[in-house]
Formats: sequence, structure tokens, C-alpha cells
Amino acid sequence: MMKQLNPKSHRIVILAEGSFGVLESKTATVLVRYLPDNVVAVLDSTNAGKDVSEIIEIGHGIPVIKNLADALQFQPTMLAIGIAPPGGELPTAWDGIIRDAISHGLHIMSGLHHFLSDNDELAELAEKNNTVLWDARKPPDYLPVATCKADDVEATVVLTVGSDCRVGKMLSGIEITKTARARGLNAEFCPTGQNGIMVWGWGIAIDAVVSDFTAGAAEEIVLEGAKNHDLLIVEGQGSLVHPGYSGVTLSLLHGSMPDAMIFCHQPSRDTVARYTVPLPSITEMIAHYEMLTAPIKPAKVVCIALNCFDLSERETVKAITDIEKETGLPATDVVKYGADKLVDAIQQL
Amino acid sequence: MMKQLNPKSHRIVILAEGSFGVLESKTATVLVRYLPDNVVAVLDSTNAGKDVSEIIEIGHGIPVIKNLADALQFQPTMLAIGIAPPGGELPTAWDGIIRDAISHGLHIMSGLHHFLSDNDELAELAEKNNTVLWDARKPPDYLPVATCKADDVEATVVLTVGSDCRVGKMLSGIEITKTARARGLNAEFCPTGQNGIMVWGWGIAIDAVVSDFTAGAAEEIVLEGAKNHDLLIVEGQGSLVHPGYSGVTLSLLHGSMPDAMIFCHQPSRDTVARYTVPLPSITEMIAHYEMLTAPIKPAKVVCIALNCFDLSERETVKAITDIEKETGLPATDVVKYGADKLVDAIQQL
Repeated sequence: MMKQLNPKSHRIVILAEGSFGVLESKTATVLVRYLPDNVVAVLDSTNAGKDVSEIIEIGHGIPVIKNLADALQFQPTMLAIGIAPPGGELPTAWDGIIRDAISHGLHIMSGLHHFLSDNDELAELAEKNNTVLWDARKPPDYLPVATCKADDVEATVVLTVGSDCRVGKMLSGIEITKTARARGLNAEFCPTGQNGIMVWGWGIAIDAVVSDFTAGAAEEIVLEGAKNHDLLIVEGQGSLVHPGYSGVTLSLLHGSMPDAMIFCHQPSRDTVARYTVPLPSITEMIAHYEMLTAPIKPAKVVCIALNCFDLSERETVKAITDIEKETGLPATDVVKYGADKLVDAIQQL
Repeated sequence: MMKQLNPKSHRIVILAEGSFGVLESKTATVLVRYLPDNVVAVLDSTNAGKDVSEIIEIGHGIPVIKNLADALQFQPTMLAIGIAPPGGELPTAWDGIIRDAISHGLHIMSGLHHFLSDNDELAELAEKNNTVLWDARKPPDYLPVATCKADDVEATVVLTVGSDCRVGKMLSGIEITKTARARGLNAEFCPTGQNGIMVWGWGIAIDAVVSDFTAGAAEEIVLEGAKNHDLLIVEGQGSLVHPGYSGVTLSLLHGSMPDAMIFCHQPSRDTVARYTVPLPSITEMIAHYEMLTAPIKPAKVVCIALNCFDLSERETVKAITDIEKETGLPATDVVKYGADKLVDAIQQL
């Protein structure tokens, strides 16, 4: 399912020109975090000469370089587009870098809404150089309307949901999957967004699917994951109170038909990011998810993953304690304290 | 916005080969109901010779004919695809009819998910014959992520929501708009689906929009409608408890930011059509809509539109009375009794 290249068998240069370390370079950060043995350099002329860890705290030993020529010494086999361009359009400067990379035989991995493979000139150049333009966000040609088939799988299905975008639904899902595997569980992470797909190698970016078929795409992901696994951790998207993306969230909730949910939240956030919409209380938001899934397949939130990256240790402990008291559910920050507490809750299902 | 042809200035033959009068021919029925002066014939060889009203109760005087040659006597200028083909693919037999129609200079109006204009052979034939292939479901090339701009319009925005697909969200919206206009209100119907677009001449089929931009499409529709109108009746889609389409429903709810909602329901239905999902009580479903919209923009359900086509007069009156008692809201069947009761409720906003 959408696995055109396996990033884990490549030497990757990340293109993050002009923006490495800022909000728009989430893809770059995710690639550094989960493919540390594959990322050989980050291209950003404004930060050239630094070590990646000086900018995003992880990725020690990976250099930031100023142009593609400087990257070639690391014998890269793939260029990954690491930042979301403002407005969604590819800046002209990048266009040149991508052409250069293709001419040097590099495959291109992109998670943009605008598909590189739809650009006739780039596609022609790639064919001539025998390289692949992998648009990780491009959905399969055929997807069904959801028909509740995800309820038939034998695997236990757990969906990460949350209060907003960028609160850790992908990261918690990956960490929980890894911890579950370390315990000997036959667990699989099911990516539903371009970043998860790039680091995990399969999945469907459901926010790029036509809305009539978005729940159907979530269903397909669960059916695929359940073929060879007993526990599926499905990556959630958006939030039920996000003015732009709530429909994606609900399609995923109803299409994946989870047995349980993990609620993800950033304690320091009290409005939807980039909007003025205030977040309801955690208890209310959890009730929203449980109420909406109930008519189709009842499922409870069984634990809480908190993103406390911007809190001190003392503040983090207080946030976890407060939220456990408020909800009666086990909570933790998986980056700071690992995912064991959450996997404990999942194993009780 | 997507107005490529004005159906009201055309003489229309409806293609409903093999299926006129069955569930899949909803488009044909809608066209007969709302464009009675424009529809000159319905093409369905299995019902040829009958009057349209013998099959769907409306459309008296419109003949059902057996092939395109028979339709030409009515000097048609447009062929409308009136049924949804099983599986979404265009049957080969229709392909021939469409080619024939284009060759005779007819424009083609289609609401299929598969766009006729993407078919290179058909597009070439249409260009040669100077006719238009109008895919009413095709979204605009650019749509934004929703940013709550619909909240800024001066117009009063009312959204039809409901318990399921095909319960009357489009029909109630059109009838309410007509009744409001008859009272002198500057009202506009805002179509969000292919059938509404075909009969009303503008709108965006939001179920054909990539899910990240579906709420943005709803926002655009409201901004467009508000340019010249004081009261907007926005066509709802699906249901919050529909396993396949709930994401479309929530995108529309959050993108259009209504001031009030009209709840649409078919009293004889107790499960989601084509699924085994039981419908929650009307009170619960209304609570779902009000709870989900509250964090972004509070809005109440102010009246109820019931679709009692399959009930006797006595059963209809009982259904209306029961639901008014259960909810405390004014309810009626707009086809049987007109939309005045619902417009009364809207005028109190």
C-alpha cells in the first residue's frame, strides 16, 4: 500500500532550505528522529556549518550543508522534501535543487499536497535518470466508501486521537508500537499522514483523499495492517474541534473502528493552534470522541499521551498528575518517560 | 463558482437507462421535480412509452423514450446523466449514448465521481462539436483550508443537518428558500452536492473535495452566497453517525459556521440506510450536532423537516406530533404541508 521506496535502505539528504528548525519543517524533524541512520545531511544555506543537534536537539553528528554540491560527498541516494512551503506551492529555488538532485541520480521523497509526479517536466527528468518521484501523500487510485469492514478484523485496533494538530498523535503511536514490540507483542503502527508514511514505509495520507472516501481509506489501512499483526496502533489526525480538519478526524474515527483510543494533548495549549477557538476541557473532548463513536462501535479512551516539550520537569509532573486526577486515566509524556504506562493500559484491553 | 452552464436555459433529456424510478435515479427525480419546464424527455428503454408521472408521481406530461433518436424530436440541447451507475463506472452502453448526444450538439451535464471531462476521447469529441462537458461534481482547482471566515458574513446562515443520507436535506433547503423568497426575504439556497448544483446552477460538491479542504469549500460557498443575500440556506450532507460520510458532514458543519440548524429525518428509518448502524434518538442526534458546533460557533437546531413520503396522512400527523413533543421544536413535512412552519422558526432568529 503506497510503498514505492523503502526510506530505510537509503542515504537521505533533507531539503529544508531557509526553514530548518521552524514550525514548517516538521517533516525534517520527524525524519531526523526516526531515520537517524539514514539521514546524511540537511540542506539549509541559512544554517550551513551547524550540527543538526544545535538546531533541533536531536540528530547529533548530522551536518547542515549549504547546497546540493556539498551534500554529494555523503553519497546520498535520496532527497527528501523536509519543509512545507508557504501556500503549498514549490518555491522556484527548490525546483532547481530538485532537478539537480534528479540529475545526480537521487530519488525524491515528498509529502506535499502538490504531487511532484504530476509535474510533467520533473517526471520526464526522473524517468531519464532512472529515479523515482515518490509522493508519499498521493492516495491509491481506487478507494471504497467505508462499509464497517474494519470491525471484522481479529487484531485489537487502537486509535490515537487528540485535542489539536501537532500534539503527538504520530509520535505517541510510533513510540507505543515500539514499546509493545519490545514486550514481544505483534504490533504494527498504521500511518495515516505523509510524515508517518515516510518514516514507516507504508500507509495512506487520508487528508489527501476525496472526502467521500476518507473513511474508506482508514478502513483499508486497518484491513492491511490486520493481515499480519495482532495489535494495530492507528495514527490519528487533527481534532474534532479543529475548524479546518475535523472532518478528517471523524472519517478516521468511523472508518478505523477502534477498540480503544489514546487521547493526545499538549497541556500548555488552550486554543486550537493558528485559530482563536478555545479548547474544551479534556474531559469534554474525551466525551466528544466516545459519544461520536458509540453509535457505530463503542470505544473508550484508555490512556493519555501528553506532549510537555515546553514544560520544565516539575511542570510536566504536575501536568501529568493533574490530568490523571481529572480523567481517572493513566497519562504520561512518552518522549520524557517512555510509553510503558500507556502500553500497560492497552494490554488490559 | 462552478457555473459552467445554466440548466434553466436548456431543453434537457435525462439519461436513466435501465433504472428510472429506482433508488439510483435520485438525480433524475430531482431534475424532474425542480426543472419541470426544462426536462423534455427521460431516456430509459425499459420504461419507454410511459409518462414520467406513472413512475415517480411527478413530471406529468414528460415522456419516457427508448433511445436518443426518439429524443431528438423534442429538440434537446442537453443530456443529463440521471442515475448513479453501480460501482461508479460508466456502463459501456451509456458511453455510446453520450457520444451520440455530443455528436448531435448536446451539452452533457454529469454529477458522477468520475469526471467526463477527464476522458480525453469525450473531451475531444465535445470540443469538435462545440459542446460543454459539465461535471457538476468537479471542485474548483484551488480551495483553502477553512479559517473561520464564514463567521464574518452579515447574512444569517442556516444549515440543514440530519440523521442519514437521503432524508431531505437538499429538498427541505430548496423549499425553505422558495418559501422565504415568497415572503420577500432575500434568501439563497447554497448547494453542496451535485444534484443541488444541477438544479440551482452553482455550488461546490463538497464530497468530491480532498478532505483537508472540505471545510474550506463549505466556507467558500457561504462567502459566495453572502455577497448578495441576507439569508443563506446551506444544503447539508450525510450524517454524524454515517460510517462512510460523517467526515463530510462535520467538515460542512465547521466550515459553514451556521447561526442555526434544521434537523432532517425520515421517521420510518431506524438504521443508517445500507448499514446495520442503529440511529440514536432524535434528541441525541440533535445534541451531537449542537455539542460539536459549540466550541467553534454555538448554534441550535431550531426546527425539524420530516420526510414522511412512505407514511399515510394519519401516520404523518402522528409522527410530526410525536417529534414536536419529544424535542419541543416545530416540525413538518415540507412536501406535504409546505415550508411555512419552518420559515416561521427561521424568521425568529
